[in-house]
Amino acid sequence: MKKIALAIHGGAGTILKSGMTADLENEYRNGLQTALEAGWIILENGGNSLNAVEAAVVELENNPLFNAGRGSVFTHDGKNEMDASMMDGETRRAGAVASVSNVKNPIRLARLVMERTEHILLAGAGANEFAGQMKIEVADDDYFFTDFRYRQLLEAREGGRIQLDHAEGVESRESRVESNAQNPNALDSRLSTLDSKIGTVGAVACDASGNLAAATSTGGMTNKRFGRIGDTPLIGAGTYADNKTCAVSCTGHGEFFILAAAAYDVAARMKYKNLNLTEAANETIEHLRGIGGEGGLIAVDAFGNVALPFNSEGMYRGFVTAAGEMTIEIYRSVGF
Amino acid sequence: MKKIALAIHGGAGTILKSGMTADLENEYRNGLQTALEAGWIILENGGNSLNAVEAAVVELENNPLFNAGRGSVFTHDGKNEMDASMMDGETRRAGAVASVSNVKNPIRLARLVMERTEHILLAGAGANEFAGQMKIEVADDDYFFTDFRYRQLLEAREGGRIQLDHAEGVESRESRVESNAQNPNALDSRLSTLDSKIGTVGAVACDASGNLAAATSTGGMTNKRFGRIGDTPLIGAGTYADNKTCAVSCTGHGEFFILAAAAYDVAARMKYKNLNLTEAANETIEHLRGIGGEGGLIAVDAFGNVALPFNSEGMYRGFVTAAGEMTIEIYRSVGF
Repeated sequence: MKKIALAIHGGAGTILKSGMTADLENEYRNGLQTALEAGWIILENGGNSLNAVEAAVVELENNPLFNAGRGSVFTHDGKNEMDASMMDGETRRAGAVASVSNVKNPIRLARLVMERTEHILLAGAGANEFAGQMKIEVADDDYFFTDFRYRQLLEAREGGRIQLDHAEGVESRESRVESNAQNPNALDSRLSTLDSKIGTVGAVACDASGNLAAATSTGGMTNKRFGRIGDTPLIGAGTYADNKTCAVSCTGHGEFFILAAAAYDVAARMKYKNLNLTEAANETIEHLRGIGGEGGLIAVDAFGNVALPFNSEGMYRGFVTAAGEMTIEIYRSVGF
Repeated sequence: MKKIALAIHGGAGTILKSGMTADLENEYRNGLQTALEAGWIILENGGNSLNAVEAAVVELENNPLFNAGRGSVFTHDGKNEMDASMMDGETRRAGAVASVSNVKNPIRLARLVMERTEHILLAGAGANEFAGQMKIEVADDDYFFTDFRYRQLLEAREGGRIQLDHAEGVESRESRVESNAQNPNALDSRLSTLDSKIGTVGAVACDASGNLAAATSTGGMTNKRFGRIGDTPLIGAGTYADNKTCAVSCTGHGEFFILAAAAYDVAARMKYKNLNLTEAANETIEHLRGIGGEGGLIAVDAFGNVALPFNSEGMYRGFVTAAGEMTIEIYRSVGF
């Protein structure tokens, strides 16, 4: 039996301990733990890696703290447009959706694209039409409406900024306080110091058969316009899996991850340079740093090794390996 | 001074000499020659590789024989949805658009995304909104309406097929003859035996400074639904350029090119395995053959070497190297 392993992330960016309260940190840790447990119980019971990464990402999508699914940020037009992708390392099949709306769990839709179509990437209204045919669970706008996300949009619109989810922004503190007075909301107030995030969630897993899988999901950038698509729904950029090398899920400034073909690059360094997982993942993150690409990735190989490198201040992350011990981290620390 | 070089393609697939008339073959060859000349004159006069690949692709987009720009196929809903991408090997910046309508030359819009935004990929209505702001040249539906493309759609709808542009299909000959009677059209009749194509156009170039560029454009798949996006607008899959390795433009069954991260894979084999351009390009095409991915690619390195491998029956292609001699090929032949 191979060594099972699971790793997840909830976004990377400027996450400083000084801007975090103990309560909020606990909520993030609890959210990560819930997601890890949802995936791990599947692997422990002999389930496959696809089901494990889907279960973990669904939990993160359902948690309004993370920029994916329910907690997705707003576009310039006040809409939620979500992206997700999944890849199966055994068959090397993949599915992805871009700019879908009102789908409760975009990662489930990405899986349906993989399993029910001959395509890989469906986008926009067409992807939503496919969601309708698949009778996948939808949710109305209210479900996705969280005050603090909406205020992020209002602030970003004022400042003319397109905002990744999590890159410390203090410039519009006054407007934030004003709108806070109008829309008092507990979660909102607590998140105000952390409101700019490079937000993406993801999971990678190795199951008992040594099959790998990767899944990534995001709510995109606050105030994004023009139908911008980042790396999350792009196989090879945000997500990649191949039993022969690794499964990878990325989070960060998507444009740079696209230029670096970041997720596939980890695999390419393993198969063409004969690097191990950690070496390959670290080199990819170093390359990203070199071209100005802030963020991180999680990766697993078919021996149950995990790597979670990042070049930003922090990355919401966690992993469990065969011994069964769970590790959850937010800031920079020894080991990663 | 480096050795300048230019290569182009007009799609790969089941292109059999038996299905081609001498006149039609001449039209294809003339179309390829016009595009090569448009790019080559720029390189010869010391112009840069970005301008050269753009000029070549614009010519191919303007020629109704090729599935890009004017000759784009119809989606299931009877629309033209076009994709294009471009990458600059010197700066490693890139731009792309997916599912845009009524833009006369999608490759020009991809370049504007690269040069005027911080994004890489814009899609759908948002990309068209950006096109409007850039005041890029648009064309009405009539410009894109070619009878034979529309009948391809009607036939594909009847058969419930999604059709790449160019994969020999004879099953609906009767309906073709019928609609031919209703819509007599010279080009249409001549193309009827070639009506199924894996259609994409592209160009790669090395200029006198050794700067590389790649550009790719497509009208997608006949009868495609659900907002399917192929490899063409995806940097790393359909298009890639880096002065340190190569510039690549792909054509073929897009889903497989996405899974293989085909365009970036050529570069990865060069930098991580120390292969030369031809070796790397051939290995990528062999890998694609292994996973069932039909198609080809064109590639150039900073020394002015070119490679044009494909695993399909044919690929519309041409190239010019420093000596100034122009080569245009359609079928399998020695050398490639």
